Amino acid sequence: MPSSRAPAPAAVRRPEFAAWTKLGNDITQQFLSFGTRPGLIALSGGLPAPDLYPVADVQEAARHALERYGSAVLGYGTVEGLLKLREAVASRLSTDRLSLGPENVLITTGSLQAVELIGKALIDAGDVILAEYPTYLGALDAWLPRQPRYSELPHDGAWPEAKFAYVVANFSNPTGAVLTEGARTALLARSAESGVWLVEDDPYGELRYQGAVQRSMLEMSAEPGAATYDGLVVHLGTLSKTIAPGLRVGWAVGAPEMIRALARAKQGSDLSTSTFCQGVALELIRSDADRRHVPALVKAYRDRRNALCAAASEHLADLFEWTVPEGGMFVWMTARQQGLDTNALLPIALKEGVSFVPGSVFDPGGKVSPSLRLNFTANPPEVLQEGVRRLSRAVRDFVSHRSAAE
Amino acid sequence: MPSSRAPAPAAVRRPEFAAWTKLGNDITQQFLSFGTRPGLIALSGGLPAPDLYPVADVQEAARHALERYGSAVLGYGTVEGLLKLREAVASRLSTDRLSLGPENVLITTGSLQAVELIGKALIDAGDVILAEYPTYLGALDAWLPRQPRYSELPHDGAWPEAKFAYVVANFSNPTGAVLTEGARTALLARSAESGVWLVEDDPYGELRYQGAVQRSMLEMSAEPGAATYDGLVVHLGTLSKTIAPGLRVGWAVGAPEMIRALARAKQGSDLSTSTFCQGVALELIRSDADRRHVPALVKAYRDRRNALCAAASEHLADLFEWTVPEGGMFVWMTARQQGLDTNALLPIALKEGVSFVPGSVFDPGGKVSPSLRLNFTANPPEVLQEGVRRLSRAVRDFVSHRSAAE
Repeated sequence: MPSSRAPAPAAVRRPEFAAWTKLGNDITQQFLSFGTRPGLIALSGGLPAPDLYPVADVQEAARHALERYGSAVLGYGTVEGLLKLREAVASRLSTDRLSLGPENVLITTGSLQAVELIGKALIDAGDVILAEYPTYLGALDAWLPRQPRYSELPHDGAWPEAKFAYVVANFSNPTGAVLTEGARTALLARSAESGVWLVEDDPYGELRYQGAVQRSMLEMSAEPGAATYDGLVVHLGTLSKTIAPGLRVGWAVGAPEMIRALARAKQGSDLSTSTFCQGVALELIRSDADRRHVPALVKAYRDRRNALCAAASEHLADLFEWTVPEGGMFVWMTARQQGLDTNALLPIALKEGVSFVPGSVFDPGGKVSPSLRLNFTANPPEVLQEGVRRLSRAVRDFVSHRSAAE
Repeated sequence: MPSSRAPAPAAVRRPEFAAWTKLGNDITQQFLSFGTRPGLIALSGGLPAPDLYPVADVQEAARHALERYGSAVLGYGTVEGLLKLREAVASRLSTDRLSLGPENVLITTGSLQAVELIGKALIDAGDVILAEYPTYLGALDAWLPRQPRYSELPHDGAWPEAKFAYVVANFSNPTGAVLTEGARTALLARSAESGVWLVEDDPYGELRYQGAVQRSMLEMSAEPGAATYDGLVVHLGTLSKTIAPGLRVGWAVGAPEMIRALARAKQGSDLSTSTFCQGVALELIRSDADRRHVPALVKAYRDRRNALCAAASEHLADLFEWTVPEGGMFVWMTARQQGLDTNALLPIALKEGVSFVPGSVFDPGGKVSPSLRLNFTANPPEVLQEGVRRLSRAVRDFVSHRSAAE
């Protein structure tokens, strides 16, 4: 045995992990580790409601997939995904104006993988990503190893040199905001002027509780009459919100040139998305199970959003301000009192038995933030109400201690 | 519409893709694109035999997983994987000498993802990986975006400064070679001396057609009596060869420090491996379906190996030399004639209706190679025999034209 002749492994200094592993926001790890405390009401998650997963539909789709496709859904499949599933996604998203084929579609292991692959395919260290502030935490995490620089997506005026712009146009995570048709048109014009890719991440689009549906920037940027889409928008979708995240089936839709580059990047990441899950997804989409499931989700989530916002109006209105979101999973609240740091508030809230995500984690610079994100989809109304009461106690405790210390 | 006011997207120069996308071996893309020609006998694949996938076992496991775990196998799950599956893998690999717990196990989206995550967690541009030459093509592809340098793993003598060494100890891809117990002991001693991680990728270990089973380096490096493994070996396994690749369920087993770093890297890649596939994998392992399936695989693959090698003895013995592999999926052949370039041979072979993988793709430098890799698992014996006859014709044609040109 080498252990009797060589020094014990623990005695020798092991290699350093890669530089990026020392970057990022500590608070992220902190709130992840607190997420599983017993009795905690987690308003920090970004999860669908597990009690609403369509278990029976998935059961049936799995049985059909194996009966119909057999070994074809047990092999590696191609990097790009099962042809029939790519065709089904292309067909779903095609409109009078927008003509999509399988060459426009890459199946990914959840839409977070699509986000990661866009960074992998485009970013060398120091390259610029244009992002909204605050922006989706998972995207920042996914791009960290590529060492990008961030620049705030300008509301008007020309774009700086960049590889891509990243936008969640429907019910942004974390703010819940929706881009108007005018804002979408302006983004497309800037993207076209500068030739910069425009990533339209759309996990929440189907979860609309009020207001009119907006056209996607993918559709708006299509050349009418073109046989296949070749524009600058890369549109990301997923079954995680309409069916269940556990399938890990998402997609990127864009110009064939981009799909090829993403496939090249995916080949070295996981070879292909589970063909078994792709077969299940195909059966679910073919039978419209995902669309049939949406009204029940919308009803339940609307009730939950309303319950959380009503409780907040009662218990938090003097401390925070917010906009009731038209859809999605989150309410974004900003403290009325200047200088309130939600990073420092978090431990007090955890002591009161409620968690939230402090605004700092949605900022690439990880700065102090007076904002916080509350999730309303993963808990029933009465739990949300109790969570808000706990949060109210925590903020009052925090503010009074801070005043005493000053 | 922006398209009527702004220049058409295609008219503006789009951003360059990342630098790594221009690197790598062109021949890889070339043979991938030729892989689906009608009538082609593909000896180039690295695939299990689809007709041997245990479809009924997967069907039953999927049904049980949803019945028993319901929404728990439809959510995101933790980054590290389902606790019960991590425990099952830990228990499977534990021995009298080696004590493993779930803290030693990360579930990955196929074992290629584990390979990629090791690079992501450890490599900054220019860091050194110690590898056997030739080495697994998929690993080279996975690490390319991290821009490592490669150094050949020394057969004896001290190791240079490096982040990790990568070894397929059982039936190497592409050579089919097995490391002896003595060679394993020597590698472990060098790893311990230098503190360099030793990655033991073991996708083929169960596919042994003759000869005695070797102990894993994971087991050999365990401190007897330790409650949990904390050594330098990172052992990679998968269900892709014993059940089916379409599940995309693999694992990395190693020191808790390494598992934590890999989980951090995985979080930004795909959040978690499909919990549905993990539930299916758990049911398969619990019912020992994967182990029950191995004897049938071994019998079929042994027959195929024998058929290919017998045909090669008849048709190729004057042109190539090879060792009959004790297990795995490949025969590695090296031309007897000096200067034969298997990259140049490939188009001739494709014209004859047979594909192989030229040796150059298994070398980080992509040099000319007199060797080629033949797969014997994905086709029945009679197809393998015809493939070898076609290859023999191609080589004879190639050699005679080359002689005429000289």
